[in-house]
Amino acid sequence: MTRPTPLSGFPEWLPEQRLAEQQVLDRLRRTFELYGFSPLETRAVEPSTSCCARGDLQGGLHAAPPAGDRRRRRRAEPRPALRPDCPFRPLCTGARRQAAVPVPPVPDPEGVAGERPAAGRYREFLQADIDIVDRDTLPSHYEAEIPLVIGDALRALPIPPVTILVNNRKLCEGFYRGLGIDDPEEILRIVDKLDKVGPSVVKDEIAQKHGAARADACLALAGISAKDASFVDEVRKLGVEHPLLDEGIAELAAVVETAREHSPGLVQATLKIARGLDYYTGTVYETELAGFEQFGSICSGGRYDNLASAGKDVFPGVGISIGVSRLLGLLFKADALSVSRPVPTAVLVALWSEEERAVSNRIAASLRARGIATEVAPVPAKLGKQIRHAERRGIPFVWFPANGENPDQVKDIRSGEQVDAEGWAPPAEDIAPTLR
Amino acid sequence: MTRPTPLSGFPEWLPEQRLAEQQVLDRLRRTFELYGFSPLETRAVEPSTSCCARGDLQGGLHAAPPAGDRRRRRRAEPRPALRPDCPFRPLCTGARRQAAVPVPPVPDPEGVAGERPAAGRYREFLQADIDIVDRDTLPSHYEAEIPLVIGDALRALPIPPVTILVNNRKLCEGFYRGLGIDDPEEILRIVDKLDKVGPSVVKDEIAQKHGAARADACLALAGISAKDASFVDEVRKLGVEHPLLDEGIAELAAVVETAREHSPGLVQATLKIARGLDYYTGTVYETELAGFEQFGSICSGGRYDNLASAGKDVFPGVGISIGVSRLLGLLFKADALSVSRPVPTAVLVALWSEEERAVSNRIAASLRARGIATEVAPVPAKLGKQIRHAERRGIPFVWFPANGENPDQVKDIRSGEQVDAEGWAPPAEDIAPTLR
Repeated sequence: MTRPTPLSGFPEWLPEQRLAEQQVLDRLRRTFELYGFSPLETRAVEPSTSCCARGDLQGGLHAAPPAGDRRRRRRAEPRPALRPDCPFRPLCTGARRQAAVPVPPVPDPEGVAGERPAAGRYREFLQADIDIVDRDTLPSHYEAEIPLVIGDALRALPIPPVTILVNNRKLCEGFYRGLGIDDPEEILRIVDKLDKVGPSVVKDEIAQKHGAARADACLALAGISAKDASFVDEVRKLGVEHPLLDEGIAELAAVVETAREHSPGLVQATLKIARGLDYYTGTVYETELAGFEQFGSICSGGRYDNLASAGKDVFPGVGISIGVSRLLGLLFKADALSVSRPVPTAVLVALWSEEERAVSNRIAASLRARGIATEVAPVPAKLGKQIRHAERRGIPFVWFPANGENPDQVKDIRSGEQVDAEGWAPPAEDIAPTLR
Repeated sequence: MTRPTPLSGFPEWLPEQRLAEQQVLDRLRRTFELYGFSPLETRAVEPSTSCCARGDLQGGLHAAPPAGDRRRRRRAEPRPALRPDCPFRPLCTGARRQAAVPVPPVPDPEGVAGERPAAGRYREFLQADIDIVDRDTLPSHYEAEIPLVIGDALRALPIPPVTILVNNRKLCEGFYRGLGIDDPEEILRIVDKLDKVGPSVVKDEIAQKHGAARADACLALAGISAKDASFVDEVRKLGVEHPLLDEGIAELAAVVETAREHSPGLVQATLKIARGLDYYTGTVYETELAGFEQFGSICSGGRYDNLASAGKDVFPGVGISIGVSRLLGLLFKADALSVSRPVPTAVLVALWSEEERAVSNRIAASLRARGIATEVAPVPAKLGKQIRHAERRGIPFVWFPANGENPDQVKDIRSGEQVDAEGWAPPAEDIAPTLR
């Protein structure tokens, strides 16, 4: 076997970074479960259809898009992001909650085929995705619930605070239609570029076709943001009226106020958020990580009414994805997230001689039975060498089995403190590697 | 989006089966961590090389083999099953323990390209793999440790008992060489077919080239099995001598005796086990599940000295893989493994009216804060309808918020028992879905 070739776009993380990733995924899954989300798996391959010829594999199969990656989901609609048994089967009753954590790392077929990987853009990545889907109708209060889940999930991690920016498609569309604009999608696409091209370019582009007054109104709407329902008055002040605008305002106010009660400061109505994807039909989400705003959204999604159907049944849904690989890549690079040690092991049991391995094995077994991760020294080297082995592996404690007159003892190799092993247990913070 | 096409070879499990799979993976990982195994990830794609042209994707990348699938690892050696940073980098000191749990479901490129999927053979599957690898040398006691880990991991699951069948390549090779046979690999390959073709065919095939006496000796060796070191005497009785035979006997005796102290009955020296793969160089493992013996090994592996190298460094290792999808497929089909409920949710909080949703949300938030997975009813339907919603979802408890004179109450919808909610918590066995 030859040394494997590093691959551009495939993150290679240190063992301790993998441990950190695992812990992040565990905590996300735990939060999702507390809200009733069931695990979801997606197949790594799907049957090809004529309209997704890119990324084709032989045999009529191709790599499937990552679950929850709505950009790809949309581009290749016949590739299901929801598995066939869910929500399409009768066993699914009531609003299904499904979480794909971890979405197995999936090679991005478009990335592999065409795109250049960039900072924070990987060709293979993990996403943690939640969706709530129902048949025929889905009450809008689920759009208010999604930010609570994400808030709980991300605030449970030792990372900088996040702000979830929310907007509502009905609000924007109703506003544009109230202005007499026939193609609200076009305005959405223009406003979506606001942060990139600046307000004057956006204004010019809208004004060219719809006049300066309408362009000003659109920019004024995009400029509104608030962490409570006060945005409603600001929108009303613009004097535009449309039934769809009213509906969107009510939905967005419910999202912001529900979140404000749950986690003050978590959610901010931000009326320039467009998400640029025409299948969103209600609330849309983006998420800023404090200090990392320039890297863009770390968690995005929205309400989609027309994405999934089967015969005459429709399956409206709302979902959001945390870009786990992207988020961790940014945090690792900034040295803003790590684990307390690089191995699960808390204790190395020393070994006096190969003949006494069974003695050390028994000690290890009894520690493991108490939930303490333990290894036995690889060889009966000199004691100093065994301690250095623990040090190099990052194992904090060495257990010395009884030897002649000496009873069993345990050494904390960080402090050098050595104590009688009788009744010893590692301090709570040393039982497992912890995120910090 | 159209209804996705079912794909032959891709298991589609019910939501409760996915929950079961998740719990199995969690428990396996927990056991692996107790032995100090660190998580390992493998890329889903690897650079193509000339000798693994099958399964090629465009762009010089192809789907990588599942980590730990040694058959494939061998067939396509330049495709690394061990990641580049591990164990090839200086940060790896001492024997590395790495566990790939879950190995992300990986489409089997060979299966996709050629093989027909069969019962228990999937084109996409999960494996849980552990390996211990070191630079230059790896003490043989690690070969005795692997069955302890697997024994702890599988015995922690509510599945039928397993027996790990072990043999040693040095023992067989030494025995055949002691008989004066020059090509021990050839005999291994013939003996590997024993269960399939029967002893007389095996005997004839060996006898043809090496004479009846040698064939009888080989069959006699293959017939030996024991759950303790008593196999040693039986081998000695065959009167064959060779230094490699002595080495193999000592190693196998250590594996069997170490396991016998740890978990009596778990490991059985079974001298017909060959594993048919010529890169194994020491202990080999297969695992039988009681009542499912006819489906073959559910967990296999062995010691490999020559699989990985980098320049003049070699990286001997020992590893084993649990075929998780295969194991679960067999158990699900036999109705021998399930979870206590199909959703994580323990409590559904009822809803009196849409205006009072914030009240129900607050109750849900306080239950979640106590680690109790909770949903709020989707709509303020009649109470009977809300209870039926919980029933259909498989949620065991419904919480009724205070209403007029009535205080908060909780109903166990299985027994119909309704109690005051003050200080209530679900019984331990109902907090989360449990494997059974």
